[in-house]
Order: sequence, then structure tokens, then C-alpha cells
Amino acid sequence: MGFPSSPAMSRALDLARVAAAMGEVPVGAVVTDPSGQVVAEAHNRTRADRDPTAHAELLAIRRATAALGTERLAGLTLWVTLEPCAMCAGAIALARLSRLVYAAPDPKAGAVVNGPRLFGLATCHHRPEVVEGLGAAEASQILKDFFARLRRGDGR
Amino acid sequence: MGFPSSPAMSRALDLARVAAAMGEVPVGAVVTDPSGQVVAEAHNRTRADRDPTAHAELLAIRRATAALGTERLAGLTLWVTLEPCAMCAGAIALARLSRLVYAAPDPKAGAVVNGPRLFGLATCHHRPEVVEGLGAAEASQILKDFFARLRRGDGR
Repeated sequence: MGFPSSPAMSRALDLARVAAAMGEVPVGAVVTDPSGQVVAEAHNRTRADRDPTAHAELLAIRRATAALGTERLAGLTLWVTLEPCAMCAGAIALARLSRLVYAAPDPKAGAVVNGPRLFGLATCHHRPEVVEGLGAAEASQILKDFFARLRRGDGR
Repeated sequence: MGFPSSPAMSRALDLARVAAAMGEVPVGAVVTDPSGQVVAEAHNRTRADRDPTAHAELLAIRRATAALGTERLAGLTLWVTLEPCAMCAGAIALARLSRLVYAAPDPKAGAVVNGPRLFGLATCHHRPEVVEGLGAAEASQILKDFFARLRRGDGR
């Protein structure tokens, strides 16, 4: 797709696969510092944690701020396998993340290029640099396989 | 203002005052079950927790799901002293809360009647009943006092 390979997105895709194996909607997220080091990572855990806010992005942000002991993640990049929803896009802005790299767009619930297009609104006070498409084919296939398995009834 | 008094909103306002005393932006939230019993409550803790996602609403939702052992809060009401931001409005929809009662509107960062007006979008898959204005004067005064004190430099 013209994108260079990326260890951070590869890791996010692996985390999505781990989520799928647990019966969670397969989305993975990684936060890296300016040198490319992984600061935090997470996958969806809404079912395991019985927590509707336990999306990969929100957990990765909370883990990154805990790891760094800071409320703001300026200079850092969030890599995620699916376009963030409104909750997660809002959290990305609140955390002041410098960059968002996501794989597949989410026409159903996305809030970056779909739905509210949150970062373009006057009520959004921080706009990260956004890169879409890195790893998109792979991320979409993981989601497709997961939901096909669910429909067949052999999901967990 | 024509609203009946409400123990839940009174409690949310008290929680906002507790937040202010801690140097946190004064917003309080309470979740009640259909009988009016308080299931969970929280105030802003972004500074104390060094967590940009630690808004009153998000914490109250997480505490309510933990208290009830369920991922969804159907039938429950969230009472909050300020119009929720995009992150929190998104979380309210994901949690399937039946009702949102908030005090003051937030033209700067609100996402219910301001900004994205999130619950009206096709990418939002649950629309709670929304009541605005209960306790608004008191909630606004608490916020105004807090920011005036901050500007004077005697905030903590």
C-alpha cells in the first residue's frame, strides 16, 4: 500500500489477534515515544473487564500516562488497528497525543474521518497529526474473520 | 428554574465542590438505578490521577459497571454537573445508559448540544434521553468560582 513496514503497527495487529482469541472485538493499540520505543500497549477488553470504556486506545492512553507519570502525552504517537470512536478520539485529544496512526477506517462508529470528524471541530482543543491506512488490509481481515466466526456461532 | 429538587444532582454538585477543593476542575457525576438508588459516583480526578481520561462521568460509568458486574447500564441514569465532552458522551452511548441529566451546558467542549451533538449522529448507536438544566445555576457558579480563584493564583 506504499507504506513502510512498522514494528509498532505490527505489534498493534498482534494485539488485535490476541483480543480475537479472547472473544473480544479485535482492536489493538500501542503508544510510542519520539524515539519509537513502546511506552504502553493494550487490546480491547470490554468483555473481559465488563467495562464499556475498555477500548484498546483508552487503555493504552491510561497505561502510557501511568507509565510516564504525566497527564499529557505530547510528542507521543498512538498506533491503533481501527479508526477511533468518539470516546477514544476525545481521549486522544485530551491526552494531547501528537500523532495518531490508524489502520482501517470505521464507517460505522469512527469519529476521525467518519461521524463527527472530531478533530476538526471548534470544541476539540487539540488536533493530532493523523495517518490512515498503515496495515489496513490486515486489520480489516482480522475484524472480518472475527465477525464471520461470531456469526457462525463458534466465537467464544 | 422550574425543576424539582433532586438528591442525585445535589450529590453531584457536592462532588464538584470536593473536586474544586482538591484543585480539580469541579465536575461531579452520579449514576442511579431505576429506583433512584446511587450505584456509583465520582468527581474529576485528572490531576490527582495524572490521567486525562479521569473525568467524573467516565469514572462514574466504570465504577457503576464494576459495582453491577455488567458491561451495560440499561435502565440507569447518569447525573452530571456539566455537559459531557466527546469522550464522555461516547462512553455514555457505549454504556447504553438510559438517561443523561446534566446541569450546565459547555459551549467550549460539550458534545451533546454543542460541538458534534454526538447522540444525533448515525455513528452513535445509542441515544439516551437527555435532560439539561437541572442545577445549572449552581454548577456554573462552582465552575466560575474555581476559575476565578485559579486566575487570582490562589488555586492549588
